Amino acid sequence: MTETRTAPDRATAPPPPSVPELVASMTLEEKLAQIVGFWDKGDGDAVAPLQGAFVEPQGLYDVAAHGLGHLTRVYGTRPVDPVERARWLWDFQRWLVGSTRHGIPALVHEECLTGLSAWKAATYPTPLAWGASWDPDLVRDVAALIGRSMRQLGVHQGLAPVLDVVRDPRWGRVEEAISEDPYLVATLGTGYVEGLQSEGVHATLKHFVGYSASQAGRNFAPVHAGPRELEDVLLVPFEMAVVEGGVRSVMHSYAEIDGVPVAGDPTLLTGVLRDRWGFDGTVVADYFGVAFLQLLHGVAADLGEAAGQALLAGVDIELPTGDAYLRPLAEAVRSGAVDEALVDRACTRALEQKAELGLLGATFEDEPPTEVELDGPEHRAAAARLAEESVVLLANDGTLPLAAPGRVAVVGPNADRLAALFGCYSFVNHVIPQHPHTEPGIEAPTLREALLAEWPQTHLTYEWGCDVDSEDVSGLEAAAAAAREAEVAVVVVGDSSGLFGRATSGEGCDRDDLELPGVQRRLVEAVVATGTPVVLVLLTGRPYAIDWALSSCAAVVQAFFPGEEGAGAIAGVLSGRVNPSGHLPVSLPRSAGSQPYTYLHPLLGGDTDVTNLSSRPALPFGHGLSYTTFELGDLDVRAGSTAEDLEVRVRIANTGDRAGDDVVQVYARDLVASVTRPVAQLIGYARVSVEPGQARTLTFRVPPARLSFTGRDLRRVVEPGALEVWVGDSVADRRHSQTVTLTGAVHEVGLHDPRRTTVELD
Amino acid sequence: MTETRTAPDRATAPPPPSVPELVASMTLEEKLAQIVGFWDKGDGDAVAPLQGAFVEPQGLYDVAAHGLGHLTRVYGTRPVDPVERARWLWDFQRWLVGSTRHGIPALVHEECLTGLSAWKAATYPTPLAWGASWDPDLVRDVAALIGRSMRQLGVHQGLAPVLDVVRDPRWGRVEEAISEDPYLVATLGTGYVEGLQSEGVHATLKHFVGYSASQAGRNFAPVHAGPRELEDVLLVPFEMAVVEGGVRSVMHSYAEIDGVPVAGDPTLLTGVLRDRWGFDGTVVADYFGVAFLQLLHGVAADLGEAAGQALLAGVDIELPTGDAYLRPLAEAVRSGAVDEALVDRACTRALEQKAELGLLGATFEDEPPTEVELDGPEHRAAAARLAEESVVLLANDGTLPLAAPGRVAVVGPNADRLAALFGCYSFVNHVIPQHPHTEPGIEAPTLREALLAEWPQTHLTYEWGCDVDSEDVSGLEAAAAAAREAEVAVVVVGDSSGLFGRATSGEGCDRDDLELPGVQRRLVEAVVATGTPVVLVLLTGRPYAIDWALSSCAAVVQAFFPGEEGAGAIAGVLSGRVNPSGHLPVSLPRSAGSQPYTYLHPLLGGDTDVTNLSSRPALPFGHGLSYTTFELGDLDVRAGSTAEDLEVRVRIANTGDRAGDDVVQVYARDLVASVTRPVAQLIGYARVSVEPGQARTLTFRVPPARLSFTGRDLRRVVEPGALEVWVGDSVADRRHSQTVTLTGAVHEVGLHDPRRTTVELD
Repeated sequence: MTETRTAPDRATAPPPPSVPELVASMTLEEKLAQIVGFWDKGDGDAVAPLQGAFVEPQGLYDVAAHGLGHLTRVYGTRPVDPVERARWLWDFQRWLVGSTRHGIPALVHEECLTGLSAWKAATYPTPLAWGASWDPDLVRDVAALIGRSMRQLGVHQGLAPVLDVVRDPRWGRVEEAISEDPYLVATLGTGYVEGLQSEGVHATLKHFVGYSASQAGRNFAPVHAGPRELEDVLLVPFEMAVVEGGVRSVMHSYAEIDGVPVAGDPTLLTGVLRDRWGFDGTVVADYFGVAFLQLLHGVAADLGEAAGQALLAGVDIELPTGDAYLRPLAEAVRSGAVDEALVDRACTRALEQKAELGLLGATFEDEPPTEVELDGPEHRAAAARLAEESVVLLANDGTLPLAAPGRVAVVGPNADRLAALFGCYSFVNHVIPQHPHTEPGIEAPTLREALLAEWPQTHLTYEWGCDVDSEDVSGLEAAAAAAREAEVAVVVVGDSSGLFGRATSGEGCDRDDLELPGVQRRLVEAVVATGTPVVLVLLTGRPYAIDWALSSCAAVVQAFFPGEEGAGAIAGVLSGRVNPSGHLPVSLPRSAGSQPYTYLHPLLGGDTDVTNLSSRPALPFGHGLSYTTFELGDLDVRAGSTAEDLEVRVRIANTGDRAGDDVVQVYARDLVASVTRPVAQLIGYARVSVEPGQARTLTFRVPPARLSFTGRDLRRVVEPGALEVWVGDSVADRRHSQTVTLTGAVHEVGLHDPRRTTVELD
Repeated sequence: MTETRTAPDRATAPPPPSVPELVASMTLEEKLAQIVGFWDKGDGDAVAPLQGAFVEPQGLYDVAAHGLGHLTRVYGTRPVDPVERARWLWDFQRWLVGSTRHGIPALVHEECLTGLSAWKAATYPTPLAWGASWDPDLVRDVAALIGRSMRQLGVHQGLAPVLDVVRDPRWGRVEEAISEDPYLVATLGTGYVEGLQSEGVHATLKHFVGYSASQAGRNFAPVHAGPRELEDVLLVPFEMAVVEGGVRSVMHSYAEIDGVPVAGDPTLLTGVLRDRWGFDGTVVADYFGVAFLQLLHGVAADLGEAAGQALLAGVDIELPTGDAYLRPLAEAVRSGAVDEALVDRACTRALEQKAELGLLGATFEDEPPTEVELDGPEHRAAAARLAEESVVLLANDGTLPLAAPGRVAVVGPNADRLAALFGCYSFVNHVIPQHPHTEPGIEAPTLREALLAEWPQTHLTYEWGCDVDSEDVSGLEAAAAAAREAEVAVVVVGDSSGLFGRATSGEGCDRDDLELPGVQRRLVEAVVATGTPVVLVLLTGRPYAIDWALSSCAAVVQAFFPGEEGAGAIAGVLSGRVNPSGHLPVSLPRSAGSQPYTYLHPLLGGDTDVTNLSSRPALPFGHGLSYTTFELGDLDVRAGSTAEDLEVRVRIANTGDRAGDDVVQVYARDLVASVTRPVAQLIGYARVSVEPGQARTLTFRVPPARLSFTGRDLRRVVEPGALEVWVGDSVADRRHSQTVTLTGAVHEVGLHDPRRTTVELD
């Protein structure tokens, strides 16, 4: 662990008391104070639904009289200068040190999904774009930069990454998740954890577990899943991030699974997480999640009972504030309804985390930072690279790249709108909409501006066309007219991202159809009807059912909120400066009515003779085009026993005329097993750069755990038998396939063996 | 059990050997012969998907040389005269008695979902219409009539009822199911079982279990459900039909639940069914379901392994033919892979069923029937009454009833189409489409014909308008023109029902949108646009998203394939001869994209602040209008301990000017429980006839089991605490509500206590 700047000077300060000594010396109120947060939300900001029920009537200094566990969202609630805010923070920490009995500073946590949620901090692509990059090393680098900013500002814990496996594109939070494949989520998410924590900032896994599998993709709706789906799909990324990534904190999910809310489920929060995986960090509540046991789940009669259930289950820290864990829990403990030992357990974990962060004994005698670099060249370079790697070329009839077009019409609601580049947890979309007279704090070009820069010689016109989500068609004709005058039309449509119904994507912004919102499809069709070739650019937070556009448009470019350097990345793809290399981390759906769908399905989840409906997506998981051509060959799969690594060797050649990256994907299918198994499952992948004319050989070593599943007796096993293995540039690319046999007995996979597939490149 | 006409004359014949003696005396081939069926399908009839893989190459007499367990679908495969077919059947049974070593006749099974599947037999409303009737006594009467026809024709077992709880209207087999409420399914389904078995014909519960909860409503797709949903929703109707109804046979479902195919799951087929519920009948395979363990689920490497898994799980009889249970199973037994004791167990059960049916020792020396009444006045009267009770008046601006209109335009693809009255398992839609030159065998008017009879003085014109499912709009203008000339337009749209993609509803006919198929909405809108009041009549197999029509049409009448007397029933509702009394057994959806949805959801399955989407259906579960008005009042709910019956007393008054039936529905909500509980749950109901000006008092006694649920430790319990109880004419009618408290300790409900709620009427 890198030492934090708030670490005490151990040579001169007296050694801080041990955590057990501290807990033993604390009153009940002091212990409770350590297991709650406080959110200084300012005047009347609406930051969460139902929050009105919980607004802490007291001021911060009253609440913190007994100490304070967490300071909630110091930087991410209002657009204030981070340096100014740091001064306040240092002062407050000194007050805690000097004016509370035990002198323990607060742990400061902040959102950091697409970068630190602070005014003027770098804003990176949204996690679905990380998924499209298939580049865990780059995600690790980005997370390290985010962590560095946080550490400078005295933030100790970041509420990211989201490891929910996408199960339904209707869900508004798909943009915050990484992929529909658990292994892709696991590897990229673990990369993020490692990066953030390399700077001494604790990462927090969200949302443990099941949240993404809600009924009909509706936020918070019940999850219908049995134990096998939980183990083999939903828990997979969390296991890797805990066991391999060493994450220090986990947030419970709001979901109920088969009738049991996770926030009150000891089986998951203690049994799986701690007893089985050996997790020894803190479990924090998703905001208001403890109170929701009473208010939304109806499994507790009052807040005291909710607190008791959550505490017993293993929720150590209540966030954002102590609605249930302060007075209601104190009463429940005093009445004997809740065992004080549970409070001690949570308080011990909270203080151990503070000890680990160097907060016990920290004096904050150093000065707060007077200059911080939150969005400097290093941030910009990383943001640009991740954006470039995440743009997916879905279709191209040869129109792209357009090196220096003569006349281009740029059209559409997302063409000249800065916020269209960002997800719902970006500061720009999370905070700024409530402060409309404030600068967004991000210097970044819109796509229109980036195209002007990309094509300095081009005559470029712009038409708005329509809003993202309205029925107003008054701008369509002008858009079509602009297109008629141009050689090519770049039509930029998609989502606006935000919170709780204020947008088309983001938390609480679910969809019950997967058509482009509003009249955007009509806009595209109106422009297509002019006969001018259309390059369709999608800036969205979810995959949409745009199969109709794949054939009618000259090219289709999919970007998932690509961040502050995203406009340049897309412009680069359009001009050819950037050779596109993103691949779909989610299947492109055909309709909302065919959901839920995932590529990771058994035979009967796909097309069969027993239903008239095709479940085939419009474009398969893993799909992505390039301006060069790659050829795979010389596949050689070597299988040994069920306890050994599978070795997959394949050669990739760049047979085109320019350098490029391909994402080589290894899939497997267990042909006969004791339970139904997916017809395809990603077991390894590698992003590989190949020069024109060059060929490289990749050797994947796939650990047994990747082929394992939960058998009928709920043990995790690898079974002997035939395994079909193929390598391609999407799950549907099955030209290079080999069937091998795993030998030996049924192998029980160690519960602590979620190793990553390794890749060697010659 | 009523004695069957094939029972032997026990005074003169030697006593048949006991079942254990018989089994002990049989060779392996003879035992296997008793646990399979044979389907004489005729030349090349396509009766099921994938059946080509299984066609038995041998002829019946070769196969039956060692005896035969079941004769599959003797009457329901081809349009042949039932009397002629009975002659063949008696001859074949005599051959078995005389020419096989043990002389055991075959058990004859047939489909009977909407009546016996035989040419010219009565065809009743489809089960979704039973659901709309809320009349278990009438369903019992109908089933008894069906059973009587079967008994006359030598059929011993009927493959009905379907007890799958509707979970998603996209599924094609919704028409075969009864309701989205497990208690309504349980009571109506158990009524059917009791009726059929009162005639000595064994009923078969379909499809045990989970089939209806398939992903995205796609037929056979994986089921995502945990043990609590299974226990508290999906198993409920089966439990009642087994324990209260005493059903004699159960069919496994094709589904896999959380990765385990039911056909190979001993936990369900033996653990729940036999060990817990005490079922001692036979478990039969859904057609080809054993082989599907290999072919569709991939959990068996070959048919021998599939047979071994199914046999071990508890599938006693393979249907329709012995694809896996003959040669592959024989080889598996001889190789030692399958224990012969499992064959003995299944064979014993098969022979015990035959003994129970009087088949052991039966000689078939009596003559087959030379006259059978399959569709006589008694059938017609019952069919008419069930049809009348099942028609749901969804909306009415006062246009209905139309006693004697002057000019009516009848329009739409289902107005003059006989098959539109029937479901997919009717002989008319199941068999006749493959024999297009054959008479359908049902004498019944179309709706157009019934309206001509209903309104003899009316000038009635007819226009086709469009097909059920095509893009052809050429008929819309003529339909609109006809409407312009009329006082009122009756527009009749909906589904055509059939199998495997040949239709819009029925087995294998799933939908990924819930708009009316084809251009039917445009037809309705074109007629509405004329300004002539529109009475919309829906003849469908599922509820469609027709909220747009509820406001634009003068009245909307929903019929779920109402059977041979259905046209008259609808005509009677339109004219006012019949006062409508059907109530929705399923919520009327808003869109396919909002599915799955069920009224039986916890708080977070409904409208909340945490998602922008409303989940509210277009019309609630239980809704249905009348031509009179009812008023409920004097609600008095008396609760005692968790172990006692809840008593709900309510007064109903007919405050209108004509007699009518109302369906009084009792709902409850457990306000705080240890797991999440539905915001509403049907706990009792009664169809009650009230004369104008009359008032009646109903007293419901609700047994504790109705309020029970599966707790965290998977025990079924009733918990003490507050219970909100309301009585209304839909789930949304909450004007009469009372909150009571259940006292006492947590009560563990006996596993054999799925009692029905009783109702007393003063």
